[in-house]
Amino acid sequence: MDITAYLKEKKTMVDSYLKSYFSPPSEPSVLHEAMKYSLFAGGKRIRPILALASYEACGGNPEDIIPYASAMELIHTYSLIHDDLPAMDNDDLRRGKPTNHKVFGEAIAILAGDALLTEAFYMLSNPPSPPFAKGGMGGLLQHSAFSIPKSTILKVIHEVAMAVGIHGMVGGQVQDIISENSEPNKDTLSFIHVHKTAALITASVRIGPLLAESDNDTLHALSRYGENIGLTFQIIDDILDIEGSPEELGKSAGSDRKSKKMTYPALYGIEMSRQKAENLISVAIDELKIFSSEADPLREIASYLIKRRN
Amino acid sequence: MDITAYLKEKKTMVDSYLKSYFSPPSEPSVLHEAMKYSLFAGGKRIRPILALASYEACGGNPEDIIPYASAMELIHTYSLIHDDLPAMDNDDLRRGKPTNHKVFGEAIAILAGDALLTEAFYMLSNPPSPPFAKGGMGGLLQHSAFSIPKSTILKVIHEVAMAVGIHGMVGGQVQDIISENSEPNKDTLSFIHVHKTAALITASVRIGPLLAESDNDTLHALSRYGENIGLTFQIIDDILDIEGSPEELGKSAGSDRKSKKMTYPALYGIEMSRQKAENLISVAIDELKIFSSEADPLREIASYLIKRRN
Repeated sequence: MDITAYLKEKKTMVDSYLKSYFSPPSEPSVLHEAMKYSLFAGGKRIRPILALASYEACGGNPEDIIPYASAMELIHTYSLIHDDLPAMDNDDLRRGKPTNHKVFGEAIAILAGDALLTEAFYMLSNPPSPPFAKGGMGGLLQHSAFSIPKSTILKVIHEVAMAVGIHGMVGGQVQDIISENSEPNKDTLSFIHVHKTAALITASVRIGPLLAESDNDTLHALSRYGENIGLTFQIIDDILDIEGSPEELGKSAGSDRKSKKMTYPALYGIEMSRQKAENLISVAIDELKIFSSEADPLREIASYLIKRRN
Repeated sequence: MDITAYLKEKKTMVDSYLKSYFSPPSEPSVLHEAMKYSLFAGGKRIRPILALASYEACGGNPEDIIPYASAMELIHTYSLIHDDLPAMDNDDLRRGKPTNHKVFGEAIAILAGDALLTEAFYMLSNPPSPPFAKGGMGGLLQHSAFSIPKSTILKVIHEVAMAVGIHGMVGGQVQDIISENSEPNKDTLSFIHVHKTAALITASVRIGPLLAESDNDTLHALSRYGENIGLTFQIIDDILDIEGSPEELGKSAGSDRKSKKMTYPALYGIEMSRQKAENLISVAIDELKIFSSEADPLREIASYLIKRRN
């Protein structure tokens, strides 16, 4: 299969949902602009695409769950805005553009992150139905005919909230910050990566089988897939921070070393880190053995993630 | 009725739920500590109590909805932590104690707020059941026997997310910030108060009839009650910032004038502001005329809010 075309098609689906969702003007306009600025700053939409591909692997039609998949991108975007703040990583550039607080100031950036996180739960709990979707949102019309049980949606909300709070992403980010300048050690490093990055990626993959109401074996296999690619994702990020060019990264390289972050390359060196990432991807793909071709996109995404340059 | 005893009893119910909820240790411990620090810094639990009293007015047993009511306090606490940040109001004291960022640093304070907001949705989407509640959580055992329809809980989550995002609390906070140093005007001031403060208070009142599945007239009356006491709450806050003593307020007074905030007293003067607050409380109490004595706590809370000194 042509994974590039697949990624592009799915990214377009997510982008057009998000664009339509955020197109009605909203007050205060500076907040609305700040939210849109980071949301449409060139993200690859990996997390929503994983949700769509995972739902597809479970026999569903990806168009039916675009809103739920898209909510993952709101959460990812909020996390980037807050991570970039002066009090955190203090980054001036993100994807080649000035970070949110550089454009809108720190207060608005914090609040834009808060609003995006909140909007994700607003979206998950009752995605807009067709009246909203007028004007080119064909995919949404299909969604209108499709009803996901309320109990399933509640499960998804609970799952996502678990993945991004103290027991997930925020916990990982805190550990990342308090571990700066510490001697790297395996357990802490693993805690950081599992929580900071893998938790949201795993949750994105898991909403596929959850929304498709798949059996436990399917859910378990996809969870393991998610955890492994999630970890890989962060290892590759760590490697790119050393090896990538500023043009590829859209920000200055070497920032992890500068702020003495606890990273895979810092503990294991680049070669062994890359080896670990490759092993994880093999395990991830192996977890998909219970699926046939319907999981090909997930297999290809795993291979793509390890080759990515940004 | 003895409103002081009522407020104390309900506050104890919320406090013991929250204490039990946050008692298992959690990593990273500094994040857990930061969340608990502000959550247990002496809040009056007005928003949860409003939810409980409103549910009671609708014929329900308040104990049944303690977790949903308590989630409102997590959101309120997150908003205070973020509001106090150097990039926002830059407050050093809150309820007589150093603000979160003064104790834990800015990064942890931002993330503690993020985690509290997220935890609220985690709690709302599936509050802990009795195994969690072992050890003195008598009220929760009752809750276990009581099941709220999933569709109702989803409605509550949607409502709460609406009330605290761009269309509610965060929107109001942004407008508050960008209006500093501007000439006060009626519309902007009203936008700030309705969104920054009244939205979460109204939502807290509304979860009562929503969870009780009351009819539309009941929901409408309680919404109007919530909006009116919500506005009053902020007007009284504005007045106390001028008239209150630092001992009563738990922080230095006069901070609104110092940062040239757009407030009711700045636009109308203190006397007219107090008159407006009294009118709003009359309207709020009048909205409760469809209820008999079961709404006495709500009536008394309205009167209490206007007399409060902190």
